[in-house]
Amino acid sequence: MDNSQSADTLAPSARPTRLRPRVVVVGAGFAGITLVRGLKRVAVDVVLVDQHNYHLFTPLLYQVASSQLDPSEIAQPIRKLVRGIRNCDFKLAHVAGIDLAAKSITTDQGAIPYDYLVLAAGSVSNYFGNDKLKRHSLALKNLPDAMALHNWVLQRFEMASWESDPERRTRLITFTVVGGGPTGIEFAGALLELIHPVLRKDFRGTDISGAQVLLAEATSQILSAFKPRLRQAALRSLARRGVKVLLDSPVRAIERHRLVLEDGRSIPTSSVIWTAGVFGAPVGACLQVELDRMGRVPVGPSLQIAGHPEVMVVGDLASLEDLPMLAQVAIQQARLASANIRAMTEGRQVGRFRYHDRGIMATVGRNSAVAEIGPFQFSGFLGWVLWLVVHLANILTFRARLFTLLNWGWNYIALDRPIRLLVPARRVGDASDLGDTEA
Amino acid sequence: MDNSQSADTLAPSARPTRLRPRVVVVGAGFAGITLVRGLKRVAVDVVLVDQHNYHLFTPLLYQVASSQLDPSEIAQPIRKLVRGIRNCDFKLAHVAGIDLAAKSITTDQGAIPYDYLVLAAGSVSNYFGNDKLKRHSLALKNLPDAMALHNWVLQRFEMASWESDPERRTRLITFTVVGGGPTGIEFAGALLELIHPVLRKDFRGTDISGAQVLLAEATSQILSAFKPRLRQAALRSLARRGVKVLLDSPVRAIERHRLVLEDGRSIPTSSVIWTAGVFGAPVGACLQVELDRMGRVPVGPSLQIAGHPEVMVVGDLASLEDLPMLAQVAIQQARLASANIRAMTEGRQVGRFRYHDRGIMATVGRNSAVAEIGPFQFSGFLGWVLWLVVHLANILTFRARLFTLLNWGWNYIALDRPIRLLVPARRVGDASDLGDTEA
Repeated sequence: MDNSQSADTLAPSARPTRLRPRVVVVGAGFAGITLVRGLKRVAVDVVLVDQHNYHLFTPLLYQVASSQLDPSEIAQPIRKLVRGIRNCDFKLAHVAGIDLAAKSITTDQGAIPYDYLVLAAGSVSNYFGNDKLKRHSLALKNLPDAMALHNWVLQRFEMASWESDPERRTRLITFTVVGGGPTGIEFAGALLELIHPVLRKDFRGTDISGAQVLLAEATSQILSAFKPRLRQAALRSLARRGVKVLLDSPVRAIERHRLVLEDGRSIPTSSVIWTAGVFGAPVGACLQVELDRMGRVPVGPSLQIAGHPEVMVVGDLASLEDLPMLAQVAIQQARLASANIRAMTEGRQVGRFRYHDRGIMATVGRNSAVAEIGPFQFSGFLGWVLWLVVHLANILTFRARLFTLLNWGWNYIALDRPIRLLVPARRVGDASDLGDTEA
Repeated sequence: MDNSQSADTLAPSARPTRLRPRVVVVGAGFAGITLVRGLKRVAVDVVLVDQHNYHLFTPLLYQVASSQLDPSEIAQPIRKLVRGIRNCDFKLAHVAGIDLAAKSITTDQGAIPYDYLVLAAGSVSNYFGNDKLKRHSLALKNLPDAMALHNWVLQRFEMASWESDPERRTRLITFTVVGGGPTGIEFAGALLELIHPVLRKDFRGTDISGAQVLLAEATSQILSAFKPRLRQAALRSLARRGVKVLLDSPVRAIERHRLVLEDGRSIPTSSVIWTAGVFGAPVGACLQVELDRMGRVPVGPSLQIAGHPEVMVVGDLASLEDLPMLAQVAIQQARLASANIRAMTEGRQVGRFRYHDRGIMATVGRNSAVAEIGPFQFSGFLGWVLWLVVHLANILTFRARLFTLLNWGWNYIALDRPIRLLVPARRVGDASDLGDTEA
């Protein structure tokens, strides 16, 4: 596609004909979707930009990686979600730059001028600048990650079935999760539940008794955001399932077939799943302000950036009072940002952000989760039921909720994971491919 | 992986310890699965080999390509299907050669010796030796094809939303299906139903009125296997939906942005879907016998190849009395092959194949299908209900049946296609990738 020409549709020259201010929202995660919904009845035109055509329900991502849910249960087409919002248009594109002076973003498909800009682009995996950690590990941060990890795990077992050397076979099916946060422990628990009731039966003819799931955590505790009692409950629950938790075990290096810890211990493992850190999405760097140590953009209490009240940052990409990178924070910030945009268009004063902690939860697997809601703490079966209800209720569409519930019911009752298909890569496209056949 | 070493598990040297003859079945399609089920109580050991880890319900493949079903509804893990069959082991591998003298197949993972060999590897798309047809078209023959086509279609609309030139925009969303067989007409009908009630609403902000579906058929009729009355009914139904059917329109060339017909007509189109022919799977050539003009292996009435009674070919890959390449033929041949293997192991005479025509059917879309069952012909709504029942009943697992039914119900009532996610390619693996990290 000829970008200079295509971009005409949204070029600055078109600006004089616009009657209402244009709000460009980058990212269609929890914050982005909340924002466009919040702007539904505001006298602005909204352009929502994302590099994917779907909104992802990230808390259940690990379930795609562990063969529990289909991608269509945790991802919804953005166009479907914003269809009823008349003042919102969606554009599939990858943001390449931001021109603060000209008030315009540039994308791989063309430029989009704005009157107000909200960056809600989220976060990416953090390898702390160590490329080798990235090269020899698997991530679990977006949908392609989860689908690739799902295939990777199944593939290791197929490889093991051809492997006659017991040591190499064991190494192939030793999975090491790095990071004891919610993603790490949820995936570790789910992986063990895939291996034990399901794959053990699938691979009758092969000795897969060496299959194991390790979890390496750099500090002395998992789930550091939770209260000590719940941390202990989660730790016991992981151990009971067979996950080998290594505390005080920071990683020094990841090589092709082993993981080396800081104290020199070496773990023979072909599969390292890296969940040890997150970093603000790269688009934050386009603002040319100094980012915090987690790659996030510093914002004021009104979520605006210094010197540019028309530019706001919300969610994981915003750095404000060391708030945690949680969906709840993103959603609440998006609500404030949409209210502030309305206020600015109406000449009123903007509001300040105040986080209302609605609680945190994490599941270890079948019948076991930990949850902290205000002064209440839950663990075990009760925590798990609560986890199920809260997650189901927060899935965005009725159809996805219904199918998720049915899959969960099926998996629970049949002790089954029916979605374990290894589908090879083929020409499929994200935004960065959009141009390549129209050159 | 070191193949020479891994292959030890199945090496010929292990043969003396085997007490029962080994049957190697290549391909886990309709024929392969029927075969291993048929051999369940026979005193043989069965090794089922496939390059994918799933069995594919091919009649519904076009529904994945048109955002109606998730892959997990039409594909089931082979290991799950054969789990209850104690004398059957599955191996994920790509067959690279057959040594008829040594009675052994070679795969990318190692060799597997056999006493009986059944090739049930099916068919691939046929481009009649024209590489350019292949390069500039999309196929619809296996699951990665269907998933890539699904992404391709959604991507054309996203590209169209950035395209300001009306001619180029129309070309982007002009889809040309080549081939008027069941796959071609089913996909053409389903594609139109994706565009009309669904994508038209998704792309409010873009003029996609130029979106169209063409179907080019080389001969003077579509669905040539059906009776004239049903052919006419299908043709009318396609026309009513808006599919532009071009009869007597053999294709001369496919270029990047146009399709050229033999008579010189040129159609500006960025997307050509090739369903115009099938060819026996490449593994047939390993037998070093002369193949028929559709790349199939000639077999005798007992499905054995000349000179090697221990080698059988069944399904799409077998050439016998010009039988059609249908699931029913494959299933019935597989039943005979398993009976014949039993007969051979028990020193009895093998039986001869006789095809029992159970009927044929094809759907044009919502409320419309044609079916021919013995002397009875059905079309319209009745044909469609019949189509639904027969297809649902033939899906292999209860879970897939339930989820397919629910998706169909959802799509029918909500006029929706919720599975329209564009997921980019990422490192995922089929059998040919299995070796690459253990080098």
